[in-house]
Amino acid sequence: MKLITYLHAGCESVGICTTDEAAVLPLPQYEDMNDLIVRSSLAELAQLQQQGGAVLPLGEVKVLAPIPVPKQDLICLGINYRAHSDEIAHSFGKEQLKKRNVPIYFGKRVNRAVAPGDVVDGHFAICDSLDYECELAVIIGKEAKQVAPEQVQDYIFGYTIVNDVSARNIQTAYKQWYFGKSLDDFTPMGPCIVTADAIAYPPKLNLSCSINGELRQNSNTELLVHDITYIVSELSQGMTLLPGTIIITGTPGGVGMGMQPPCFLHSGDVMECTIESIGTLVNKVK
Amino acid sequence: MKLITYLHAGCESVGICTTDEAAVLPLPQYEDMNDLIVRSSLAELAQLQQQGGAVLPLGEVKVLAPIPVPKQDLICLGINYRAHSDEIAHSFGKEQLKKRNVPIYFGKRVNRAVAPGDVVDGHFAICDSLDYECELAVIIGKEAKQVAPEQVQDYIFGYTIVNDVSARNIQTAYKQWYFGKSLDDFTPMGPCIVTADAIAYPPKLNLSCSINGELRQNSNTELLVHDITYIVSELSQGMTLLPGTIIITGTPGGVGMGMQPPCFLHSGDVMECTIESIGTLVNKVK
Repeated sequence: MKLITYLHAGCESVGICTTDEAAVLPLPQYEDMNDLIVRSSLAELAQLQQQGGAVLPLGEVKVLAPIPVPKQDLICLGINYRAHSDEIAHSFGKEQLKKRNVPIYFGKRVNRAVAPGDVVDGHFAICDSLDYECELAVIIGKEAKQVAPEQVQDYIFGYTIVNDVSARNIQTAYKQWYFGKSLDDFTPMGPCIVTADAIAYPPKLNLSCSINGELRQNSNTELLVHDITYIVSELSQGMTLLPGTIIITGTPGGVGMGMQPPCFLHSGDVMECTIESIGTLVNKVK
Repeated sequence: MKLITYLHAGCESVGICTTDEAAVLPLPQYEDMNDLIVRSSLAELAQLQQQGGAVLPLGEVKVLAPIPVPKQDLICLGINYRAHSDEIAHSFGKEQLKKRNVPIYFGKRVNRAVAPGDVVDGHFAICDSLDYECELAVIIGKEAKQVAPEQVQDYIFGYTIVNDVSARNIQTAYKQWYFGKSLDDFTPMGPCIVTADAIAYPPKLNLSCSINGELRQNSNTELLVHDITYIVSELSQGMTLLPGTIIITGTPGGVGMGMQPPCFLHSGDVMECTIESIGTLVNKVK
């Protein structure tokens, strides 16, 4: 099942996409996606889908980021595909980054996630090295505290795409990556949440990113160094993950920073992030 | 003026402390401290204080963290007092940490801030090096976007104390500091918010931390390497800071990690963080 947040007649609402993906079934009983995640269950959503009702053609609504205002900062994984760790190690001149046994976690602030099709401010007054990162985002469905690896699957509500837009000069100069990842507009998200029951676990999904139509990233989520089971179980040993928590699982090789020579984004460039079974998230840099 | 969040008869409320700090004037017109920060002004609060009304003796309420559920993760400064940067550089064996020209920003997750007097889970199953960090927290009062240094003062709602409790083994092993700073209970906060009008700007406040009565940290906020004006102005060039944003400004020398030999926290230890004009925040490690 695909869930979206959309704007129609000046109101933000949530709904279920019809099977042909031509329309949306409104779910007015939920205030927003965070409310839906907390109060609904996949069984309940399936029942609502079956009951059906009046639908809105997708052409008549504006699709927004599925969680436009995340309740907390995103939890991010750094260097979590082998091919990306190799290019990063080369760029940073740090060979030891290649041989890490523990994940790298960091936070990414997002006041408002950017909708599919909306423009991304490149902050070129302070950023001289704007970059893209196509990532599978995992959304937690219920409070996760000290979850055993074999139980992790039960805590996942669904998946979406996040483009972890990054200001490389700020990310590296400030030592900790937080500021360079957290500028306004740096979190395009969408176009939908695919509920966990619709994707075999663990997800083995092709993911790719093109810039102005040129393929730059092309991998599969089965190549994660630290997989979803490991990440959620490990974090939950000390940090209780609340419903609605968004974890972005890292990006594969092919970012602009890793190219020879580096090839960063400019005003007018179009970023197109695709993940199998979820969809495509397109945003232009302004 | 000192504002608190408190529990009374099963309800969380906000209020203004009376001048003698023996009682609290309830402000039922605000849902919680975040709501108060968004909807009130210092002038309005001063008027409410002057109007007065029935007060509750502080002995009859439980004082909570002033913002028990922050709307977003805390923004933290790393290595922002010179004496602390020296001890950290020594501990990490990295002399270059001493000579940084840019601040270090990182995020700290907090599901629920720990109240004054409440216990802190030391997570000893995964943490072998629990540490304390007494810090001045700055609370943003209105949306701050591209704020010039000379205007920063107008955006500050008030100040409180945060103990930036840290699991040093996790902080260092995972490269980025986020996870080791974000375990449940790692954000004791309080006892009150002192509104910005009550403290001369920029704040020059003694701050100290004692462990089991032994003085460990003892400095003054005028010794910040990057001061509040610099931090807020710089962040706001790319990240819009929303009302209720909490920025913790870094800790002075004297943390357990910096001692010779290192002296970490154990179950039963009592942490006592004091900042002049704000108060003292006491928490025991469980």
